[in-house]
Amino acid sequence: MKLLAPLALSLAAPLLLAPALGQSADQPVVASASSPDGRITVSVTVDNEGRPSYAVARGGKPVITDSRLGFLFTDAPKMERNLAIVDTDTAESDTTWNQPYGEWRTIRDNHKEMTVRFREKTDLKREMLVTFRIFDDGVGFRYTFPKQPNLTTANIAEELTQFAFAEPATAWWNTAFEWNREEYLFQETPLSEVGTAQTPITMKLASGTHVALHEAALVDYSAMNVAKVQGNTLKAVLTPGAGRPKVTRDLPFSTPWRTLIISDDAPGLYMSHIMLNLNEPNKLGDVSWVKPGKFVGVWWNMIKGEWSWARGPKHGATTGNVRRYIDFAAANGIPHVLVEGWNIGWDGNWFGNGNAMDFARPTEDFDASGLAAYARSKGVSLVGHHETGGSASHYESQFDRAFAFSRDHGQKIIKTGYVTDAGQIERVDPDGTRLREWHEGQWMSNHHLRVIKAAAKYKLSIDTHEPIKDTGLRRTYPNWMSREGARGMEYNAWPGGNPPEHVANLVFTRMLSGPMDYTPGVLSLTGSEGRPINSTIAKQLALYVVLYSPVQMAADTPENYARYPGPFKFIRDVPADWADTRVLNGEVGDYATIVRKDRHSEDWYLGSVGDEIARTTTVKLDFLSPGKTYTAEIYRDGPDADYRTDKRHSIVIEKRQVRKGDSMTLALAPGGGQAVRFVASGK
Amino acid sequence: MKLLAPLALSLAAPLLLAPALGQSADQPVVASASSPDGRITVSVTVDNEGRPSYAVARGGKPVITDSRLGFLFTDAPKMERNLAIVDTDTAESDTTWNQPYGEWRTIRDNHKEMTVRFREKTDLKREMLVTFRIFDDGVGFRYTFPKQPNLTTANIAEELTQFAFAEPATAWWNTAFEWNREEYLFQETPLSEVGTAQTPITMKLASGTHVALHEAALVDYSAMNVAKVQGNTLKAVLTPGAGRPKVTRDLPFSTPWRTLIISDDAPGLYMSHIMLNLNEPNKLGDVSWVKPGKFVGVWWNMIKGEWSWARGPKHGATTGNVRRYIDFAAANGIPHVLVEGWNIGWDGNWFGNGNAMDFARPTEDFDASGLAAYARSKGVSLVGHHETGGSASHYESQFDRAFAFSRDHGQKIIKTGYVTDAGQIERVDPDGTRLREWHEGQWMSNHHLRVIKAAAKYKLSIDTHEPIKDTGLRRTYPNWMSREGARGMEYNAWPGGNPPEHVANLVFTRMLSGPMDYTPGVLSLTGSEGRPINSTIAKQLALYVVLYSPVQMAADTPENYARYPGPFKFIRDVPADWADTRVLNGEVGDYATIVRKDRHSEDWYLGSVGDEIARTTTVKLDFLSPGKTYTAEIYRDGPDADYRTDKRHSIVIEKRQVRKGDSMTLALAPGGGQAVRFVASGK
Repeated sequence: MKLLAPLALSLAAPLLLAPALGQSADQPVVASASSPDGRITVSVTVDNEGRPSYAVARGGKPVITDSRLGFLFTDAPKMERNLAIVDTDTAESDTTWNQPYGEWRTIRDNHKEMTVRFREKTDLKREMLVTFRIFDDGVGFRYTFPKQPNLTTANIAEELTQFAFAEPATAWWNTAFEWNREEYLFQETPLSEVGTAQTPITMKLASGTHVALHEAALVDYSAMNVAKVQGNTLKAVLTPGAGRPKVTRDLPFSTPWRTLIISDDAPGLYMSHIMLNLNEPNKLGDVSWVKPGKFVGVWWNMIKGEWSWARGPKHGATTGNVRRYIDFAAANGIPHVLVEGWNIGWDGNWFGNGNAMDFARPTEDFDASGLAAYARSKGVSLVGHHETGGSASHYESQFDRAFAFSRDHGQKIIKTGYVTDAGQIERVDPDGTRLREWHEGQWMSNHHLRVIKAAAKYKLSIDTHEPIKDTGLRRTYPNWMSREGARGMEYNAWPGGNPPEHVANLVFTRMLSGPMDYTPGVLSLTGSEGRPINSTIAKQLALYVVLYSPVQMAADTPENYARYPGPFKFIRDVPADWADTRVLNGEVGDYATIVRKDRHSEDWYLGSVGDEIARTTTVKLDFLSPGKTYTAEIYRDGPDADYRTDKRHSIVIEKRQVRKGDSMTLALAPGGGQAVRFVASGK
Repeated sequence: MKLLAPLALSLAAPLLLAPALGQSADQPVVASASSPDGRITVSVTVDNEGRPSYAVARGGKPVITDSRLGFLFTDAPKMERNLAIVDTDTAESDTTWNQPYGEWRTIRDNHKEMTVRFREKTDLKREMLVTFRIFDDGVGFRYTFPKQPNLTTANIAEELTQFAFAEPATAWWNTAFEWNREEYLFQETPLSEVGTAQTPITMKLASGTHVALHEAALVDYSAMNVAKVQGNTLKAVLTPGAGRPKVTRDLPFSTPWRTLIISDDAPGLYMSHIMLNLNEPNKLGDVSWVKPGKFVGVWWNMIKGEWSWARGPKHGATTGNVRRYIDFAAANGIPHVLVEGWNIGWDGNWFGNGNAMDFARPTEDFDASGLAAYARSKGVSLVGHHETGGSASHYESQFDRAFAFSRDHGQKIIKTGYVTDAGQIERVDPDGTRLREWHEGQWMSNHHLRVIKAAAKYKLSIDTHEPIKDTGLRRTYPNWMSREGARGMEYNAWPGGNPPEHVANLVFTRMLSGPMDYTPGVLSLTGSEGRPINSTIAKQLALYVVLYSPVQMAADTPENYARYPGPFKFIRDVPADWADTRVLNGEVGDYATIVRKDRHSEDWYLGSVGDEIARTTTVKLDFLSPGKTYTAEIYRDGPDADYRTDKRHSIVIEKRQVRKGDSMTLALAPGGGQAVRFVASGK
């Protein structure tokens, strides 16, 4: 018969024969604290075997029931039982800080903090602290290992943190440890069917409460994935080291923050600032040299297979091609031009093998200095491109040459790439040991920060592709501007493509971690071999507002933009830096409507995206300033627009006068979207 | 909207832009072979990226659809793509061999074999062979790495083997990598809800086909667990090393066999010989010194907390107690007496810390030589007990002392124990490095074989508790007689206990791996603090037939057996070694009826167990020899028997004359069972 019991309590020996072994029901809450508004409460308990656990409730309703805390080590007894709480500290903080660029100019950080100090009751007497920061919209917690006599270096085999969700849920997730890094279509399954998932993982509980589980400030540690234990309980699974402990750290140190954003609805998840608030403030000082902006690129034709990265008759990064892109950028007020395939190293099979890449040696047909001068004369700068092919150590060996070359050629932004299968990053240790790392192990978390810090010395910003996942580090290192880290537009060039729901999935999953360089704006709606893209033309415009990135690409070719001057105007107008952001509506994987206020004007921009079905929603324009009249420049799906037909290009562009308090109806076609610019016109 | 697409094919770069990337539908079958009866077919394909996969069909119906093969290494590029088949060999074999002891005297090994040699198309040109053995009732396959220039040592980060089940299924499984090793209650969930599971994992597919997934011949390798990838696809997850690669092997070597038993019903799973047939023949030569048999033990009173392992007023292993147990064994024809807590090292907390254990130093109140002599005089031998507390290296340091002591005291069997939390086995390397291993990592797979080989030198057999899982190695090393490796009777002494369905789960999951020392026969049906056991008294008798072990315990105390002379007669009669075995009926987790023929007489024994509901089944006695009359000594639940009431002791003991072709109705009470001895009487 079906067994309903949970994982059995196990009693390996009579010495464990204590009453109600580990039965949390009988456990006294030994520490607890609540959010500033009192709605979210975290409680910590220790059972009769000295096993600590935590729980999270919201409005008195459990969200996370008693869930384990602790560690396995490769060379020492685990810290998981025989622990006692020796003290508990609490604090509160309510501050605001400004983003140098971003979705919001000002961020409020209002939280209460509780730190629980655990000490082993055994002879080892090792100590571990767990600090909870409780916000009105969620919780972050991390472990701290203080300096202590009986643990000098932590060789972590596994982190035992669990997340026992109190209710069944629908989960949107990407599988972990498969061959292709983060670049999967999202799975939507019951929480109980989650296998091993990357974070962020987003859940809609049976009660309707939305929860996003992720981590913040991933520094010198291995990225956390989560795996099903049983029922609706997930546990941490750290990314492996290359035949080493998953994490090796000398004490004292703290882990990244494990984060739970908790909201009544999907839009509330996006509006949370927990991810940024749990990162350290800017460590780079003056970052006025970090320049958000749009870029075009010698790129889409390669993705489509019409041009090549490698040298030869189809080589894309030629002086002639790049000049045309510079002209196009200058003519349209686009400050940056990306060039891929400009350097030596692309000939042959570079996938997973970037050891031939030289980021200071242009190909013969690419006149680096001439183009740099020409770009400067047009007020444009080139975006450098460093495709490592996964050979991370080889990249580190040429940091200074590469970044000096970029600086000397007027570049402000570098797009990096790590194109290799998961688990195939090439690491070469100083002693010559060659290892194969995952994209998100401890060593890579440090590699990426080495890139960021080295680039900062040259006043260069980084846009990482095939990256380690974002955990809000742009706050601490503002020159780490953007990342890929999910299926971007490029997949629309290839068989299958991204389904219409993909963007509505991204908004409430991947985008919760930070900016994404999705490379929107393919107005031709055509991939390789004439493949149609699963999108209307209006949706391509909406992406500029919906998918935030401070470096935002106009991904299509100048020739194609010339064919769509009407829609292209929105791409010219839309900024990449914002003073304010509001999510007006949305459901995970179904639709989302976001408005953002330009950081340098009174104008607002709206983007709305749907999925494969037609949908009409009405939004109130309450975000507009009172007393002002705005000209709404509307780019909406034509009445016959449909991503499945040759009417995917059908669009209506119209103007309307609107004011705060007005409503606007958004009629999204199948695979459709809508973009609106609200131009403030005096009082 | 719900996303129905499977894991997306990912195109990380245009060089991968081949048609129908990895789409198995378009893949030609490049190698295939079938079982002797032609019903089961294995096919191997390679996709356009050179990714090999295998599939299994039965009666033309897919059971496993195209599933990945390959490896990740910590220090070299993975072997998973860019592979080509260079040759394929086939062979067939039909032999029989005899078990020195076991469930069957003679085992037939009839299979066809196909070996596919893959070679990398890249410069490395590394080679990997996959050998499939296809039986009428399932498939085993393993990888072989031949000696080759570009791979001398394999440092395996992960085995990429997947199992893509063609249908939804119900799965019975135990979670892996949780704190308590194998000792969990079974989870029954949809296959899609399996998290990370130990093997064997048993599945009933939607079509009714039963499949058990496990491995055979786990030697010098890390045990395989399986984790959900997506939908109904599982993948191998090897047990970690202690901050080392999961497996390190010099070439050439072969992996354990990955096994799939495929059957129309649950009984068919148990009747398979694949596990034994995929192990090497006996390497120990004459093993007449391996003596199957029953044993009693100074044990249950410790489990109940009435006696102690440690010295002191409650110490169980005293000369006086042991003499009484020897008398009891001798009086009842039971050849072995287990004594736990007889040695120095139990004082203090030995859980996970066995470094004080000395297996050649008895406690003061245990007269080792006197008791050995006394036992010998009674025709009984003591079963030694070596509880390592997980300190495996400490155990290895005293092998010869410990085993010589056992031999010199007339012992024939040693029960070993590894009582510590998962991941907490203490390993000390020759250079003094201290590491914490999982119970089932590569190092432990070798540790256990070191125990077995060292014990064999002293003609000692081993019964391992908290073991590495069984993979059929008793064929190769017959002195590795039995293991625990699941929740045994002891859990019935503790809060919760084993639910009535537990045994019916064991038969079709854990028992597929090999014998289990469950320690049946607690006729008092009473655990610690008077806790009632979830069983009728008749079911306790049935366990001796249903749960095979060549070392089978009479787990209750002599005092208790004295209170139940009627039922105890069956325990005295039932053998522990069999000539033949048949599973008459059963459903996973519901019920099972097994008959076995005594290896040393014409008698048959029947055991039937149910779950928490009353159930009546009728079995045909076709297993009996024609023309013979048998006296059926029946031990059945009384009409009012119920594990939930004080009628759990209600039993009817009666005799009946039966012959081949007769039927017998088995009426099982809630939590009940039935045992029958068929005594052959003349012609």
